Amino acid sequence: MSAGWFRRRFLPRGPLPAPQPPRPHSSPVPYRRPRFLRDAGSCPGTADAPSLPEARPVRCPARSRTLPWNAGYAEVINAEKSEFNEDQAACGKLCIQRCEIGAEEDQEWLTLCPEEFLTGHYWALFDGHGGPAAAILAANTLHSCLRRQLAAIVEGMVATQPPMHLSGHCVCASDPQFVKEKGIKTEDLVIGALENAFQECDEVIGRELEAAGQVGGCTALVAVSLQGKLYVANAGDSRAILVRRDEVRPLSSEFTPETERQRIQQLAFVYPELLAGEFTRLEFPRRLKGDDLGQKVLFRDHHMNGWSYKYVEKSDLKYPLIHGQGRQARLLGTLAVSRGLGDHQLRVLDTNIHLKPFLLSVPQVTVLDMDQLELQEEDVVVMATDGLWDVLSNEQVAQMVRSFLLSTQEDPHRVHLQDDPHRFSELAQMLIHTTQGKNDDPTEEGQVSYDDISVFVIPLYSQGQGSNGH
Amino acid sequence: MSAGWFRRRFLPRGPLPAPQPPRPHSSPVPYRRPRFLRDAGSCPGTADAPSLPEARPVRCPARSRTLPWNAGYAEVINAEKSEFNEDQAACGKLCIQRCEIGAEEDQEWLTLCPEEFLTGHYWALFDGHGGPAAAILAANTLHSCLRRQLAAIVEGMVATQPPMHLSGHCVCASDPQFVKEKGIKTEDLVIGALENAFQECDEVIGRELEAAGQVGGCTALVAVSLQGKLYVANAGDSRAILVRRDEVRPLSSEFTPETERQRIQQLAFVYPELLAGEFTRLEFPRRLKGDDLGQKVLFRDHHMNGWSYKYVEKSDLKYPLIHGQGRQARLLGTLAVSRGLGDHQLRVLDTNIHLKPFLLSVPQVTVLDMDQLELQEEDVVVMATDGLWDVLSNEQVAQMVRSFLLSTQEDPHRVHLQDDPHRFSELAQMLIHTTQGKNDDPTEEGQVSYDDISVFVIPLYSQGQGSNGH
Repeated sequence: MSAGWFRRRFLPRGPLPAPQPPRPHSSPVPYRRPRFLRDAGSCPGTADAPSLPEARPVRCPARSRTLPWNAGYAEVINAEKSEFNEDQAACGKLCIQRCEIGAEEDQEWLTLCPEEFLTGHYWALFDGHGGPAAAILAANTLHSCLRRQLAAIVEGMVATQPPMHLSGHCVCASDPQFVKEKGIKTEDLVIGALENAFQECDEVIGRELEAAGQVGGCTALVAVSLQGKLYVANAGDSRAILVRRDEVRPLSSEFTPETERQRIQQLAFVYPELLAGEFTRLEFPRRLKGDDLGQKVLFRDHHMNGWSYKYVEKSDLKYPLIHGQGRQARLLGTLAVSRGLGDHQLRVLDTNIHLKPFLLSVPQVTVLDMDQLELQEEDVVVMATDGLWDVLSNEQVAQMVRSFLLSTQEDPHRVHLQDDPHRFSELAQMLIHTTQGKNDDPTEEGQVSYDDISVFVIPLYSQGQGSNGH
Repeated sequence: MSAGWFRRRFLPRGPLPAPQPPRPHSSPVPYRRPRFLRDAGSCPGTADAPSLPEARPVRCPARSRTLPWNAGYAEVINAEKSEFNEDQAACGKLCIQRCEIGAEEDQEWLTLCPEEFLTGHYWALFDGHGGPAAAILAANTLHSCLRRQLAAIVEGMVATQPPMHLSGHCVCASDPQFVKEKGIKTEDLVIGALENAFQECDEVIGRELEAAGQVGGCTALVAVSLQGKLYVANAGDSRAILVRRDEVRPLSSEFTPETERQRIQQLAFVYPELLAGEFTRLEFPRRLKGDDLGQKVLFRDHHMNGWSYKYVEKSDLKYPLIHGQGRQARLLGTLAVSRGLGDHQLRVLDTNIHLKPFLLSVPQVTVLDMDQLELQEEDVVVMATDGLWDVLSNEQVAQMVRSFLLSTQEDPHRVHLQDDPHRFSELAQMLIHTTQGKNDDPTEEGQVSYDDISVFVIPLYSQGQGSNGH
């Protein structure tokens, strides 16, 4: 496994200028390192490495919670940033036991019987807000939740078709037929495990932050390579794309107040008390004011994809549940994303209105069947936080990836890409420098990003070559 | 305008065999003609025409509710069926006033100033259940609701960009910019009008059925040609596809308990009282029984796209909220669709559990920009109720359409398709006969449908040629 990772901090990702009233959450909460982090040993995000070594495959035993995992990925992440940056990342080898054995036996067992373990790889980006606490917790926790979820269903995953009963015992002779008719495949178990792991991690973050008297939340974008497939789970506005010589394919969608408008409005329709009489559920082209009263203006409600007109009433003048456009869109004037981890305590400034009921921690998962692709050395997945995609389109990133990696291959003095994993880190670095205007080849529009940006470049060639997970 | 329409009745569309307990709704409710229908004049669905004449363009004045509209489409629909069949259809010309004038002036005004009206065409299929009452009401009502909704926003529709204020009066100088940034286009107003019209029609049906002591519901698939665009609005499991020489494109998606599983489970999660302790929200590969107790079995809940395993508890043995596969899938053991009109009184047999809270009347609307297509004479939209699609795939229908229409064109003795609109009715008839095994060219698998089937074949050529709606 090799992966290039790079990130940069510039300005914290701030909310909108304050509307009146109620005012949005207008500045990051002062950060105090949570108790559990202060007590813990080494954690990801501590090594300020100027250069980026290869991500050394690290074994993570099924029940050990911190050391072997952390010792590995502290080598690869956190270039040019402080320990307490709101962006956090994690990567490492996933190793899931195929049968129940004691924790102490793990190390020996893996050496003696490697076929008794399912192995895969894990990459994760967390873009925090309101302080780095949630992102740090997520980087420390999510892989453990995922490993636990996968360990609980591993017998189902190694079967050709998941059995109706995990024990393999057939209660009805036609059980396999029922499973087949529902179209349930091994990959559905991994999708379910990712969905459950995100939820579990969110609960852990809620408990830990409450215990530490801390606040904050983060987005989460995770890629897992397992049994010849790449799973991309996304909750938030980071993005992953597949880049090949002749193809650019989005592997995730963004979840923002705009993209999830109908779900959010629907919730406010069902539970109007969540808005405490301070916000209007309806969407208008702009915030309405006194002069609009009595006029027929464009609006849409939860059940509408289209637009209609309505007579403006006094209640329509309230601050909108979702306000602003594109990058500026905010939920309850406060938050730019609608899915992620944490934010259990987050309230609209100076009110008792909670945001958590409107947020989902469950990710959308897409599956890339690597065995079905004729993978080439230059085929990569680019994962990055929103700052990169604000400045560069998928197509622009793809062009940069191609010209960078193909020029490498054409150079007779360079070794093969697979023998030079540093090239992927250099590529990640180049992408970030481009968004900062540091390269000779800036973006066409000369746009520059002032956001934190983190990037993973994952070469698929080595994942697809014989790493079928057994 | 010309359109071929054909339908057939065989067996009523029945629910699943009864599970124990609670038992599903096991037979259609005995039908009594609602009071309002008995009192009304001629209504669609009364002419048992053995052959299918061309759909003559009919003007429908903005405020006249029944006669001019009905007089027109009674000519085209209802071949080979009784007045009280559960399938109903409607089609006709839509005519929307561009300015406020008195109802009495309509006729004269249209003759004198045709440019003061927006004109379009309307086709609708309604597939009823629990009796024909809802489908008949929908066929009588929905076009009026739509015309009313469109009339209310017509000033916005004829502008290049919908104005923020329908009056055209600008409260802020930057209002047009706000509308532009939101990407609000004329077609969004028509989508909104369709969404609102379905909701309004559903309310009318609820009131009318209650007043008449009747029950029942129906799916609704509507196509509207207006200002160079074809809008397809679907609530239920009918389907519309575009067929061209080199292309087959679905113009709708089906809404069934399976396709809307997460929305339905989510509602039961938020409002568990809707299940009255009689159903389980969770999905399993089959209904569980005593032998499964304590075992770890495959399941999924509202937040999951993937699958996981859980230990079976006693409450999991209840009848599932959504049960069965594909064509057999039922909501609360009763209903095969999750969107449509009516069903306000529908309850699970022998219980007080209502289905209506789980049903949506709002359609999904897709837009086909006919001005962007280089339309050919043989380009058509095929709209049909589910019975056709149970037996024929989109591709199979497309092949039949092509070979039927192209063979017509190659015959030197035939007139041009646009001069022979009967060909489209013949094509609709041929499609239905194929599903009955009456043709020499049956389906590949020799499948036969025993469901009611209704089909519209809409030639797009005449729609696209100069019918820009003004």
